[in-house]
Amino acid sequence: MADDNYQTPRTTVRRLPQRGFYDRATIHQILDEGLICHVGFVSEGQAAVIPMAYVRVGECICLHGSKASRLLRALAAGAEACITVTLLDKLVLARSAFHHSMNYRAAVVFGTGAAVEDPAEKSEVLRALSEHLVPGRWQEIRAPSELELMQTLVVAIAIREASAKIRTGPPKDEEEDYSLPIWAGVLPLLLTTTAPVPDPRLQPGIALPQHLTR
Amino acid sequence: MADDNYQTPRTTVRRLPQRGFYDRATIHQILDEGLICHVGFVSEGQAAVIPMAYVRVGECICLHGSKASRLLRALAAGAEACITVTLLDKLVLARSAFHHSMNYRAAVVFGTGAAVEDPAEKSEVLRALSEHLVPGRWQEIRAPSELELMQTLVVAIAIREASAKIRTGPPKDEEEDYSLPIWAGVLPLLLTTTAPVPDPRLQPGIALPQHLTR
Repeated sequence: MADDNYQTPRTTVRRLPQRGFYDRATIHQILDEGLICHVGFVSEGQAAVIPMAYVRVGECICLHGSKASRLLRALAAGAEACITVTLLDKLVLARSAFHHSMNYRAAVVFGTGAAVEDPAEKSEVLRALSEHLVPGRWQEIRAPSELELMQTLVVAIAIREASAKIRTGPPKDEEEDYSLPIWAGVLPLLLTTTAPVPDPRLQPGIALPQHLTR
Repeated sequence: MADDNYQTPRTTVRRLPQRGFYDRATIHQILDEGLICHVGFVSEGQAAVIPMAYVRVGECICLHGSKASRLLRALAAGAEACITVTLLDKLVLARSAFHHSMNYRAAVVFGTGAAVEDPAEKSEVLRALSEHLVPGRWQEIRAPSELELMQTLVVAIAIREASAKIRTGPPKDEEEDYSLPIWAGVLPLLLTTTAPVPDPRLQPGIALPQHLTR
């Protein structure tokens, strides 16, 4: 791959190649916006796909979980993974059934991982993960203990081969269909949060932190 | 598997087994609520994971796309797939970093597919897919032509082996952490739609259809 580009033969988008992107900025942006990824791996000759939280740190995608997780142990041991992050932006409503579509941004990353062993590095990845999911949270919570860090497996997968596939814009109908008396356009989708719900065991007098009042 | 249950050795949840569910109703409900799935398959010995629209029709997950799609052609030829649908419900904010989590519902289905060849059946799957994504839309759009149906590959994957993994409820902290002066609770996530955006080429005088005004 080139220095600013993750294109390789197996990441090259073949169907609708005009939707394929390979530059670092585009792929990082998708990875930084998603909340969960889908991790694909081969187990006994068969693909398996598991959703996981993740964070991009520099040129790595970092996953974490229990030391008992078979998937994480396999990744830490160097198993190849395919990590896909999909952002669904809009439903595209054309005049014809055939041209209905979705506007989406998906990043597909192939790579092998390695365990992050150093406790300070591990803690730094967990901080980044927390800030990725709930910015502002890390500074107010109890940090991981030594024992908790030991029980946590952190795996970093270097982003070497990747592609993004992106559709944007209005529907594309057959030319003769544009005169049909059918509404067409896009329906934007939005992932949003609703009011935080306090833990039933919350101590009295603890205010909602400012980072959750946005 | 039992009649109302998709559990098999390879779908049995081993980490946190109390989160594993195998009954048909639970798995169908997740499949019916999701908008996209992540399809995992083995290509040249390596897992690959691709997001796709889908619909459950009875005991099958149905996918569609171009006849030129290598993935769909492989599935139509009987390649094994793992199809995962993930619904992210809440971010779980504990007092300790270690016990942060997510409330989610994920269905993981293993199976092999076959092409749906009969044009009437194909059209019925496409109708179901459209109604799954945008209920009420199918009746007002131009139905697929014979040529469009021929260009579309529809693959049905029988749901035989599957599991759901579900987390619900508040954070679970270490007993001694409950007295810490830290806010804890859950942050609900909601996938919603915003106002429909008309196609720039929309004919004048075409009103927004009622099914989009909700």
